[in-house]
Amino acid sequence: MTEPRATDLQVDFPFDYTDYVSGGRRIGRLPDHALGSPVAVVGAGGSGLTAAYELLRIGCRPIVYEAETEPGGPGGRRLGGRMFSRRLSAADSAVVELGCMRFPDSARLLRHYTEEFGLRWKPFRDEYAADVTPRTVLDLDGTSYTVSTIKDLYSAHPRFGDAHSRWEAALHRIGVFELQEALGARDRERARRLWSDLAHRFEEWSFYRFLRDPGGVGLSRSDAHLVGTAGVATTVWDAFYDLSFLETLRMLLTTEGSTMYLLEKGISALADAFWNRRTTGPDGTSTSLAEVNRGAPRPAVTALEVGADHAQGVVVHCEDGTSQWYPAAVFTPQLHILETGVEVRPLNGVQPFGPRLRSAIRRLSYWQSAKTVLVTPLPFWEGSSMDGVTITDRLPRATYTFDYGEPPEPGGARGVLVLSFTWSQDSMKLASSTVEDRVAALVRELADIHPDMAEQLHRQAKTAAACTISWENERNFHGYCRFARPGEYTYQWDLFANFVKNFTGSPPVPGEPPTPLFLAGDDVAWSPGWLDHAMASGLNAAWGVLRCLGGTTTPDNPGPGDLWNHEHYRPLTLPDGTEADHR
Amino acid sequence: MTEPRATDLQVDFPFDYTDYVSGGRRIGRLPDHALGSPVAVVGAGGSGLTAAYELLRIGCRPIVYEAETEPGGPGGRRLGGRMFSRRLSAADSAVVELGCMRFPDSARLLRHYTEEFGLRWKPFRDEYAADVTPRTVLDLDGTSYTVSTIKDLYSAHPRFGDAHSRWEAALHRIGVFELQEALGARDRERARRLWSDLAHRFEEWSFYRFLRDPGGVGLSRSDAHLVGTAGVATTVWDAFYDLSFLETLRMLLTTEGSTMYLLEKGISALADAFWNRRTTGPDGTSTSLAEVNRGAPRPAVTALEVGADHAQGVVVHCEDGTSQWYPAAVFTPQLHILETGVEVRPLNGVQPFGPRLRSAIRRLSYWQSAKTVLVTPLPFWEGSSMDGVTITDRLPRATYTFDYGEPPEPGGARGVLVLSFTWSQDSMKLASSTVEDRVAALVRELADIHPDMAEQLHRQAKTAAACTISWENERNFHGYCRFARPGEYTYQWDLFANFVKNFTGSPPVPGEPPTPLFLAGDDVAWSPGWLDHAMASGLNAAWGVLRCLGGTTTPDNPGPGDLWNHEHYRPLTLPDGTEADHR
Repeated sequence: MTEPRATDLQVDFPFDYTDYVSGGRRIGRLPDHALGSPVAVVGAGGSGLTAAYELLRIGCRPIVYEAETEPGGPGGRRLGGRMFSRRLSAADSAVVELGCMRFPDSARLLRHYTEEFGLRWKPFRDEYAADVTPRTVLDLDGTSYTVSTIKDLYSAHPRFGDAHSRWEAALHRIGVFELQEALGARDRERARRLWSDLAHRFEEWSFYRFLRDPGGVGLSRSDAHLVGTAGVATTVWDAFYDLSFLETLRMLLTTEGSTMYLLEKGISALADAFWNRRTTGPDGTSTSLAEVNRGAPRPAVTALEVGADHAQGVVVHCEDGTSQWYPAAVFTPQLHILETGVEVRPLNGVQPFGPRLRSAIRRLSYWQSAKTVLVTPLPFWEGSSMDGVTITDRLPRATYTFDYGEPPEPGGARGVLVLSFTWSQDSMKLASSTVEDRVAALVRELADIHPDMAEQLHRQAKTAAACTISWENERNFHGYCRFARPGEYTYQWDLFANFVKNFTGSPPVPGEPPTPLFLAGDDVAWSPGWLDHAMASGLNAAWGVLRCLGGTTTPDNPGPGDLWNHEHYRPLTLPDGTEADHR
Repeated sequence: MTEPRATDLQVDFPFDYTDYVSGGRRIGRLPDHALGSPVAVVGAGGSGLTAAYELLRIGCRPIVYEAETEPGGPGGRRLGGRMFSRRLSAADSAVVELGCMRFPDSARLLRHYTEEFGLRWKPFRDEYAADVTPRTVLDLDGTSYTVSTIKDLYSAHPRFGDAHSRWEAALHRIGVFELQEALGARDRERARRLWSDLAHRFEEWSFYRFLRDPGGVGLSRSDAHLVGTAGVATTVWDAFYDLSFLETLRMLLTTEGSTMYLLEKGISALADAFWNRRTTGPDGTSTSLAEVNRGAPRPAVTALEVGADHAQGVVVHCEDGTSQWYPAAVFTPQLHILETGVEVRPLNGVQPFGPRLRSAIRRLSYWQSAKTVLVTPLPFWEGSSMDGVTITDRLPRATYTFDYGEPPEPGGARGVLVLSFTWSQDSMKLASSTVEDRVAALVRELADIHPDMAEQLHRQAKTAAACTISWENERNFHGYCRFARPGEYTYQWDLFANFVKNFTGSPPVPGEPPTPLFLAGDDVAWSPGWLDHAMASGLNAAWGVLRCLGGTTTPDNPGPGDLWNHEHYRPLTLPDGTEADHR
């Protein structure tokens, strides 16, 4: 069996974004008259900052808008979006990651930027990561299993072993590992052929159906539960049963065979670096996003007036009462906000979105996700049964322990105990509870799983600093990340294709006007909750802006839109037929 | 084709609960020494009040606990649970239904109680209800269709007509209408045979899969979207795509062919009546729940200590610091609260729930549901395009208009405009928005669908009283109602069977101790979000309490547990096999 090897590419559009911007390369070249053009970038998360940074490098003046606030942030704004690290006190070494926290080494684009900014990675104490995690405790149906690797669980729990072998065999049989190999070898023709088979066959399947159906793994309900809880990707994937199986495949392609890391200073350091680091424009002068934005992002956007074609620009209305015209704009927030908080109006009578994009936006779905964390003076769990990761079918679902090392000041905290990291229905259980109630309920369950730590846990619950988040209750987010259900491929296609506009001849989605508004972010990327691909969507948007301003790429460094019509790149079109038509 | 006729029975357990308690019949008879036994009833919603009322009628002393508060309620507590009507001012005739609002005439048990209490029904202005609803406006993919009945939509939108005919034909083909007929004729043997076929075949199917799969309706994606939005049950069922198809079938069996009604004074009037109305005990003395509870329910429960068998009773700990021992208890809240807010401990060392029930409770899922309502002095929409129901794929999804008639005092409001009634992902879009933001966003969309009402809508948004709810953010609920996904039948079986304990010989679920704690409510009923069957679950629990206290039924009026072992009643057992085993 081929050893799985995670890929950085998006299987639906296997463009190499890292090559596009690394080695000193820029995304293209603006005509002289367009140098210094202001471009609105709405949202200072991963995709917005990537777009802004690369636009800065070609000589634009990206003006960043951000709705999130934070007392210590530039101009009182919080940079980063779902890159959301918090250090509770300056004395602490401990960093709480309220948003994304672990990143596979397959994330090449992300690593390109962290290298450029000199940010350091260290291994993430992940489940089954025997090299760095002392132990993984699986608490399944009331029984605890302590293992180092997933294979250890095979002998400890033979039924799990049998079910998990069948899961891996099924992935092998349908060609997932072969596809990974093709992507790794940049054999786009073969990858396309393999993906086309999978996409046609499984587009209407849920992840759960693949586990149960004889055409998938063919597991019994209880065996599917075992694999779903403890055997897929980062575990606890029974929370994702409703997901389109294609989404499951995308996650597997990018993670199977990878190793997870965290950013030593917290992932927000990447947002800060994008903002503060100086880079050189095409004329060789040095500048930064902070400088161009005079030290602070603009506040929340309330409305966009969007022109009907590339020439008409976008008027951005801001909650501070100001309005500003831009030749082009990049919009990165979660798109439900277009229905609830940001009004999109035509500037000249033409609706900015055609019917297909409107439908795709309306029918987006988001996952709930919650985290509850204790910051402790010391890693009090060291050497105990809790030292590592605990995966359970109880309330906490996934518990992680981190030691951030010697704190910068005496008395600072170095321990981070992620009591609970949950998704979907598991997050709903806690969404209406206060942080005190969350900690109490979670500690009760953990103390029961780790009786040796019960006393310590109860004590820490009373004294340690706690923080929590439910992303679905955050008004600028409405959820943690988008996900596609069975049958929603075409919506995702339409959203992703938005940046191409009519630059390659005609709009990829019929009826979509060639506006100067470019969507980017997690909603638009192919892999949900995937920073690397969200950043890539920022590069798509930046390419669109480049073209919108009359810029070009060179044949030796084509941009994503330049390859749109290439048969190995352009995302597959699936017919709107019945399932029978697909077979 | 057989005309569909909605049934009152639960197809999984076709016991006639209405016969059991109507015509002056009581649920059984207590031995003399047990008369006056206190019984704890946790939760004053539909199931709790039904249980309490029937326990009162056999001579128990039901002590009711309720966590919800309301200034005007008895002792500051709010009765009713998801029966949640609000009259904003005593001068108003207008009633806002924040919870359940429409009830089919198939709901016989519910109607038994409303008749007993002299509460009056009036037709609900539902979509496609041509007799009472001036018009139903369907706003689909940007085009509006105005119709009276669903068949009108066939001619206005032939593609819809074709897809919807195929949906109905598929239901006919798999035997749904034949099953309704068998249930209507009380032919339980035939019903059981038909249901067994359906349950084995579709237990692992989602509703969406049934729409798309050639073995179901075999629709294209876009046709499935049409039927899902405008053609199933109360419409907007595309929000329920992930639902187990068995749940869809349960809903169809109870609603197809029924007519919807609302309670003239609001559904909370039923809760008030259960509480206040006097009834006679077995000794002929007259009493009421209010009297037995000295005018007020006890406050929220914080913990339960549960005995290991029927003799040991339950200690109920309350947030007011008091603790009370009862010989038996009925627990009706949404069961996730057992993980987050109410601790269940053993009284004598034996865990109150066995492994299967613990799993079933942990894996329950809940739907989000939100409503946003304007209460207006007059039904200002009268005669306009908005006079009736609007169904849309935009943010509001479903809009209803009601005129509650002459207000009791001059200046009172009579109009209720339900701007939006949503489920699932559609509710998530608004869950983090303030009521002002919700109204603004919803009115913007509605004004666009009904341009003739735009000015009025914007004016009313500024002046009318607004209220809103997101059930998923209510800490005593965690969501509106439970739902089952594909493959979760057995969890539901285990929860429903809880009341049977070991009264029929052995516990129906192996490993469950015969505790004196009886679960009831929506989580335990077979049909989610279905008041009638939630009330029936209260009768199950009441039967369990009766038996626990040494009471009996008579052969001419057997209780639900007495028929548990009857082959036409006992819920089907589905194997924990692969899908292939089911075929």
